[in-house]
Amino acid sequence: MKGVLDIPPELSEMQAWVLSGLGEVSDEIERALASQVPTVAELCRHVERFRGKMLRPILVLVAGAAAGEKTDVPPSDDLRKLAAVVEMVHMATLVHDDVLDEAEMRRRAQTINDRAGNESAVLLGDYLIAASFRLCATLDDPEPARLIGRVSMELCEGELLQIQNRDNLSIDEATYFEILEGKTAALVGVCTRLGARAAGAKQDVQDAMDRFGRSIGSAFQVQDDLLDLLGSEDVVGKTLGRDLKKGKLTLPLIHHLASVQAAQRAGSIELLEAASERHGGTGGAATATSTPILEAMRGTGSLEYARTKAEGLVEKAKRSLDVLDKSPAKSVLELLADAVLTRDR
Amino acid sequence: MKGVLDIPPELSEMQAWVLSGLGEVSDEIERALASQVPTVAELCRHVERFRGKMLRPILVLVAGAAAGEKTDVPPSDDLRKLAAVVEMVHMATLVHDDVLDEAEMRRRAQTINDRAGNESAVLLGDYLIAASFRLCATLDDPEPARLIGRVSMELCEGELLQIQNRDNLSIDEATYFEILEGKTAALVGVCTRLGARAAGAKQDVQDAMDRFGRSIGSAFQVQDDLLDLLGSEDVVGKTLGRDLKKGKLTLPLIHHLASVQAAQRAGSIELLEAASERHGGTGGAATATSTPILEAMRGTGSLEYARTKAEGLVEKAKRSLDVLDKSPAKSVLELLADAVLTRDR
Repeated sequence: MKGVLDIPPELSEMQAWVLSGLGEVSDEIERALASQVPTVAELCRHVERFRGKMLRPILVLVAGAAAGEKTDVPPSDDLRKLAAVVEMVHMATLVHDDVLDEAEMRRRAQTINDRAGNESAVLLGDYLIAASFRLCATLDDPEPARLIGRVSMELCEGELLQIQNRDNLSIDEATYFEILEGKTAALVGVCTRLGARAAGAKQDVQDAMDRFGRSIGSAFQVQDDLLDLLGSEDVVGKTLGRDLKKGKLTLPLIHHLASVQAAQRAGSIELLEAASERHGGTGGAATATSTPILEAMRGTGSLEYARTKAEGLVEKAKRSLDVLDKSPAKSVLELLADAVLTRDR
Repeated sequence: MKGVLDIPPELSEMQAWVLSGLGEVSDEIERALASQVPTVAELCRHVERFRGKMLRPILVLVAGAAAGEKTDVPPSDDLRKLAAVVEMVHMATLVHDDVLDEAEMRRRAQTINDRAGNESAVLLGDYLIAASFRLCATLDDPEPARLIGRVSMELCEGELLQIQNRDNLSIDEATYFEILEGKTAALVGVCTRLGARAAGAKQDVQDAMDRFGRSIGSAFQVQDDLLDLLGSEDVVGKTLGRDLKKGKLTLPLIHHLASVQAAQRAGSIELLEAASERHGGTGGAATATSTPILEAMRGTGSLEYARTKAEGLVEKAKRSLDVLDKSPAKSVLELLADAVLTRDR
């Protein structure tokens, strides 16, 4: 969990179990993606360079442990496979997202579309999804394959709803959360649900673990919005542009536009457009103009509002854990929830 | 089976069963793609306009009947769902193919990429794949989900291998067939396998039905190559350009380039390039030059060679049916195999 958490000494055994489990998850992914076609094998090797903190596999493993999985032996076959499955779904979304964003770099490596072209990147994303489903279907329990299929549909629905609302300055908070549920929260929820299920948890515990995952997934995204804006105070305008440039309204902006007085709304939209660099502003000129919109948002308490929302989601997540007995794994889940609010990307 | 086959009167009951089954398969697809997100529902409705002859669902149903499925009642839940699953996988490949080809029209309807943009088309293809896997995972038998996952991986491998060999004038026949197995034959093979399996066929019958499907899938593709070239005799150069423009070598061309004498090879490549319209020739000038390359291919017996290959594959397919007792469904499978050679697109 390096990079994700500072782990206190009393949880170091738990940490060691997760770290060694992640090694086995990586091996499982490699086996699942193995191809006799050299060009496919080469692209799969490259895509592994995008592997980040492996937050989703970590959640599967820790949720499993919190629900009773033994931690003095390596993770069970099912738990290891499920951790691999969710990471492969995530990898597929990254590869397709990079095509959609025309991105050239990811985690200091060349994107697949930049390296091998859009066609290969679309096909490689499809290959990753198919490999993930196939691996999931090797479990004796048929339920994970149904859930992973359902959640993958929700992922696409969330992304498509976001595209539909691009540049929609009147988007409401309900739609914002609907997008976020599909795009981010649903997959995180299925991670903690499936971890608990593989460890033999009862249905009510599985449901609670799903709520835990969804809540921290949502909190993560709201915090991301805040970092996008507040990061811009240090490096003025630099990050503010990221979401705005894509026409993506963040929670603080949605709150601001909904609560600002009608007479001032037009002014705020002008400030927004100046800060977004997409309506004719040059890079240099635009970066200097992001502070006024931040000030305007402070005036309506919109940053504080989003911060309170994120905190509320983390609290809700932790309350979902009430169904679990105290354990090192439960403590790690609580730490992971808190870490959502303290991370700096 | 309108549009696919002329059915003799003694098989009309079988035909009626399949046609009514296809109606239920369409309903199943509609249910599987249902979305609360209006933009997703709208795109799914549009994509149904691409629905063609439903050859893959037909093969699932007829293979099922040939392996013992009762035809005096509607297809079983599993057979109907599997027929829907393979069509949804096929629909997903069409949507992504259109993105890759930058196509604007498909079956007289606007493509998804042209209608809603590349981003939405990539995501809608992903949605179709995910919905297909989810539906497949609702069966009690876990094997179909594994097979569909595996075959979807092969599909991507075939397409990626084809991209890798684009413009490769030295591609050999083994690689050509490797591409074709992945791109086309594997999915057709799984259609007939799964139909037989759902009807309770033993393993050896399932294997034979897989070989049947793969063989007619391969024959279909070789025949496609021939139509691409011979269509060009009537509408000179018009269709010849289609495959060549994509840098895709067809079986007759591969055979020709491998068998022409070294001294003449350069000449053939020049003729090819002239006919392909992609190396600087203008539309009008190039269309007139496709006949010389056809003549050159006749000189090496390459058209005849491909024709014989296709016929051999159809014969092989029909021999695979020896494991089945005589039945109207078996007769339909034989007719479907023969129809591969007589179709004109």
